[in-house]
Amino acid sequence: MIEILRLSHRIRRDPRISTHVALVARAFGADKIYYSGDHDLALEDSVNKIVKQWGSNFQIEYIKDPIKLIKSTKSKIINLTMYGLPLENEISKIKKFKDLLIIIGGEKVPIEIYKLSDYNISVTQQPHSEVSSLAIFLHEFFKGEELKLEFKNPKVKITPQISGKKTTTFI
Amino acid sequence: MIEILRLSHRIRRDPRISTHVALVARAFGADKIYYSGDHDLALEDSVNKIVKQWGSNFQIEYIKDPIKLIKSTKSKIINLTMYGLPLENEISKIKKFKDLLIIIGGEKVPIEIYKLSDYNISVTQQPHSEVSSLAIFLHEFFKGEELKLEFKNPKVKITPQISGKKTTTFI
Repeated sequence: MIEILRLSHRIRRDPRISTHVALVARAFGADKIYYSGDHDLALEDSVNKIVKQWGSNFQIEYIKDPIKLIKSTKSKIINLTMYGLPLENEISKIKKFKDLLIIIGGEKVPIEIYKLSDYNISVTQQPHSEVSSLAIFLHEFFKGEELKLEFKNPKVKITPQISGKKTTTFI
Repeated sequence: MIEILRLSHRIRRDPRISTHVALVARAFGADKIYYSGDHDLALEDSVNKIVKQWGSNFQIEYIKDPIKLIKSTKSKIINLTMYGLPLENEISKIKKFKDLLIIIGGEKVPIEIYKLSDYNISVTQQPHSEVSSLAIFLHEFFKGEELKLEFKNPKVKITPQISGKKTTTFI
């Protein structure tokens, strides 16, 4: 099981960023995203609509207490942070595990999260985005195989084209 | 020169997404981002502040007429779209070029863009994010070397840590 934990979601500031984090989680092969902060039914609705249309069993769940989840998980805990050890040096160790809980921070991640994590990992030591950090992490973890994933029970599917768009819809 | 063209930026809907696209462009080794749509001084200011603090010669420029830019560039034109040919099949051809103009769409990309592009490329055929598409594209293009980039004249720099945060500031 590959699970994501998105910390401190804020309805006003993060609506599209959190949606993009969730869609990356799904598209790049994770099974579930938890999020804390503001309970946001519109976020859940956006993600569930994509799942219904494009397939998979991907789930989204709001949790009030992320520390409780972190303390109770049996998965290896990965905290994605620009302050952590470089992904390219650590990924071979992490690839050995089957079950991960990957933490994606908000603005200020409490130091407790760093201490509870098995690995604090940086995707470059430069500021960019939680969306790109998660994508690159999962891309390295799944060795590029995730780019070819087929999803269960889609209602719509794309056939790649040199130019233009081709979609097939299933009823 | 690796340049990005972000189409149809909208101040109300996209402020943080466009900022993240620009920061990914910089962090993953591109030289410049152009954007069209709404002229947004706050976006430019956010990006320029990061450049000043974290280094590099990365530039951001607003353009009114993206088609004119596309028609006049001498770079190979890459349109990132979920409808294009799979990245993993095309990247070896694209790696041979030194100069790229990489187009990142807004909501509705006109079919003219598909026709003017040398390569329409998909990073999975699933919905996720322009932020992650650009990151994965640049990561594959630069073969992971971009993760180790050092930037010119930074005022702040991170030293990776197993746990916690270490930054050095330069005056």
